[in-house]
Amino acid sequence: MNQVINAIGRNLPEYIDGYGKVRPFAGAFATAPDMPRQAPKVKQIFPGEQKLVADLETVFKRIPITDGMTLGFHHHLRNGDGVVNMVLAVAAKLGLKNLNIALSSVFPVHAPIVEHVKAGVVTGLDTNYMSGPVAQAVSRGLFPRPVILRTHGGRARAIECGQLKIDVAFIAAPTADDYGNLNGVNGPAACGSLGYAMPDAQYADHVVAVTDNLVPYPLSPVSIPQTRVDYVVKVDCIGDPKGIVSGTTKITRDPVGLKIAQTTAKVIRAAGLIKDGFSFQTGAGGASLAAAYYVRQMMEESGVTGSFALGGITGYMVEMLEKGLFRTIIDVQGFDLDAIRSLATNPNHLEVGADFYASPFNLGAAVNKLDAVVLGATEIDTGFNVNVVTGSDGVIMGGSGGHSDAAAGAKVTIVVANLLRGRLPIIMDSVLTATTPGETVDVLVTERGIAVNPHRPDLYEKFQAAGLPLKSAEELKALAEKIAGRPESITTRDKVVAVVEYRDGTVIDVVRQVD
Amino acid sequence: MNQVINAIGRNLPEYIDGYGKVRPFAGAFATAPDMPRQAPKVKQIFPGEQKLVADLETVFKRIPITDGMTLGFHHHLRNGDGVVNMVLAVAAKLGLKNLNIALSSVFPVHAPIVEHVKAGVVTGLDTNYMSGPVAQAVSRGLFPRPVILRTHGGRARAIECGQLKIDVAFIAAPTADDYGNLNGVNGPAACGSLGYAMPDAQYADHVVAVTDNLVPYPLSPVSIPQTRVDYVVKVDCIGDPKGIVSGTTKITRDPVGLKIAQTTAKVIRAAGLIKDGFSFQTGAGGASLAAAYYVRQMMEESGVTGSFALGGITGYMVEMLEKGLFRTIIDVQGFDLDAIRSLATNPNHLEVGADFYASPFNLGAAVNKLDAVVLGATEIDTGFNVNVVTGSDGVIMGGSGGHSDAAAGAKVTIVVANLLRGRLPIIMDSVLTATTPGETVDVLVTERGIAVNPHRPDLYEKFQAAGLPLKSAEELKALAEKIAGRPESITTRDKVVAVVEYRDGTVIDVVRQVD
Repeated sequence: MNQVINAIGRNLPEYIDGYGKVRPFAGAFATAPDMPRQAPKVKQIFPGEQKLVADLETVFKRIPITDGMTLGFHHHLRNGDGVVNMVLAVAAKLGLKNLNIALSSVFPVHAPIVEHVKAGVVTGLDTNYMSGPVAQAVSRGLFPRPVILRTHGGRARAIECGQLKIDVAFIAAPTADDYGNLNGVNGPAACGSLGYAMPDAQYADHVVAVTDNLVPYPLSPVSIPQTRVDYVVKVDCIGDPKGIVSGTTKITRDPVGLKIAQTTAKVIRAAGLIKDGFSFQTGAGGASLAAAYYVRQMMEESGVTGSFALGGITGYMVEMLEKGLFRTIIDVQGFDLDAIRSLATNPNHLEVGADFYASPFNLGAAVNKLDAVVLGATEIDTGFNVNVVTGSDGVIMGGSGGHSDAAAGAKVTIVVANLLRGRLPIIMDSVLTATTPGETVDVLVTERGIAVNPHRPDLYEKFQAAGLPLKSAEELKALAEKIAGRPESITTRDKVVAVVEYRDGTVIDVVRQVD
Repeated sequence: MNQVINAIGRNLPEYIDGYGKVRPFAGAFATAPDMPRQAPKVKQIFPGEQKLVADLETVFKRIPITDGMTLGFHHHLRNGDGVVNMVLAVAAKLGLKNLNIALSSVFPVHAPIVEHVKAGVVTGLDTNYMSGPVAQAVSRGLFPRPVILRTHGGRARAIECGQLKIDVAFIAAPTADDYGNLNGVNGPAACGSLGYAMPDAQYADHVVAVTDNLVPYPLSPVSIPQTRVDYVVKVDCIGDPKGIVSGTTKITRDPVGLKIAQTTAKVIRAAGLIKDGFSFQTGAGGASLAAAYYVRQMMEESGVTGSFALGGITGYMVEMLEKGLFRTIIDVQGFDLDAIRSLATNPNHLEVGADFYASPFNLGAAVNKLDAVVLGATEIDTGFNVNVVTGSDGVIMGGSGGHSDAAAGAKVTIVVANLLRGRLPIIMDSVLTATTPGETVDVLVTERGIAVNPHRPDLYEKFQAAGLPLKSAEELKALAEKIAGRPESITTRDKVVAVVEYRDGTVIDVVRQVD
């Protein structure tokens, strides 16, 4: 097999069976779009015509769904999602084969996919993040074709650019009316923003809303409009609230995590970003929230009003909005009940699609306007390339999600990590799976020091002036290895089980089978 | 020239110079879409790249705008609009020729277009409504090519279907941020909904926001998103508030108008529509508001909660929303300050695009869900075909706007008219210019009686049972002629000055030159 080396030095096959020709990653902003937008057939519905269909089986037959089609799903119901399994059970019952599943993220609840792959019902998967049994099975070579791993912005791009053509989008809708207006803020399975479903609704050939909360026409507010929805199916239950929203998200109590968070806030301040108009994205985990906690203290001390908080939204960000620390929240995904309540009631809490959030190929995603983003890593190398796809055993346990998107967009991208993960160093010469290219990562914050990407001497000077504990990535790596030794490299098979696409659609890396 | 006769018996040329081949109107629901959606080139903008441009001239050069292009504009600033004239002045200054103007409605303030046509800067016009000097000049043969008259839904359709390709959309934006998020609810030229600009923003090759109220990023709420806007230009003033919003809209005091309005309400009640879930569209004129007044009384008496009010929104409809008489307002265009305030603050006041409002070619416009619509007419014939384009002198003084769209969608379409207009009967054997086909009009209400379209015997029976004063259209026509005599027919020249497209893009009629 001929090989090609991409811009971060990854050896890739020129062609991958079941995927096609590899377009090698050429640099974070080196690949330009050169296509028209995806253009589904224009449709028509007559006054008086109904969209409400008795059950999913009827929808399958009416469209009709046939072997080999791509079915789209969103992940806003997270580990409480009931719709993917429900739809695939119908597909299996009807004897369909060779389906491709475009599900924005895969959770443990989606374990039944494994059986559908074994039965040949499903043969392809296209996702931005996966954890649990499906991810493990993918790593062990379950799928006949490589899974495509995208970023949240990359999925929106691929849909808009016609590279991920969704034949039928099934949209889990916490609330719907009978003409296909949908929102996520009401109903027993309320999840907040429906941002990741918006590109599917806009560009799929057929759109099916699946709801357990049918309300009289017209629904308000409307997140996905009637003009793009073919059918509405009422079911008993689309999801389990316990798996949909996290409980109260809490700031970490781990002293190492708190130290890293505090240093992160100092980095942001030293970079000169704590001023009016400050914009910020951080994750929903305890350590990310801790960083937000310290940033907030600085904002309050300086009397600063930020412009927007971005990303997966938690009650902590809502509180900052309500206290006037941010003027707006831009919400592609909400994580808790406060985020849902705020989206439903606060006009300064904006619901946006994945394209608005993070697509590289439109007239400007929100990530482009970020001052600072705080991101995690399972591995980072001395070239600042980050792995958030595979664990130390080579098994897939995540994915980029918005990682690469926010890193590419933000003025200052900060990766935070404990020097050791379990008993293994997280800094190495070369990450097992490159997810986010080093050229888009500016700073690494660990509990033992801060490394600045050499391409940002401006930041290095500022941090030095602020007296921050600067080290080179190589020094941090040596420190980690001194404690934990040099990790053994993973042995993988040749078979490519997943292709990691950068947000622009080029291939940044592949994941190979592990035993 | 070969002629063709369309489904309502209009004689049309098979081919019209400057327009092309005529697709004859075949029936309100007889022509189906058979094309993919318009697919502009996918675009890209890098983080840090700016959209703010110093002035319009720079935008013209940067795009660049060249001879023969189609420039799109919306009419939400109505007779206070300053943007169309501003942009065309730049075009003239730069020596551009042969431009096509796609402006959703033309008002007296747009009179400078006449000079631009004389100078060859502008040679084409595509609009849904026109009044004032431009309309008069069109009728007298000013334009070298026929003007295309569409409906509000038809314009959205033509844009989405690629039949009206807008090269550059100039969007007058009452508020904007520097990354192209736009809304109409804030700023000195606030106009409310930006519904008619939404298809332009979605499908134009280039989108330019013109604002006099630039606010920090990110704007909230967002009506048109940053992802579709190429440039933002700040100017001193985009429009004159006196021409943008009407003052307090008042119910007519004319006793004949009040009688017609009261009868209209009785028609709606007799049709069995005054019940929970009732949906309603009416105009902003004094007589239409009077109909709303009587309908409201009935709703209050019966304790009915309507589902939605649709169309151009006034304070009267807002009051009904706030009093709980309607659950929602669906707003493509607001007419007064109350409508703007409500849109900005009430989550049950939905802002929608022209496509959602009225396009025949998507998965369902709001007009499809209408129970009743009350519409006007300058002429109506015994086949219930309505003219809202030309006056009794043959001069253009209006256009369909949403007339044909709402008529096609509503369960019961009611045309209200005084039997005489000035001193001329409004009912005749054949209207001068057919705008809305009779098959979509159910009832004509005049001060001397009600005529029911023979294709609705169900309504006839209900009205008879309710004791309403029923007459045939022929009887009403005879009554009118008895008072005012038979009107002389208009003499027109052969030259086609405007092509009247039905909402599906077929030609329902043409307007010929008058002296």
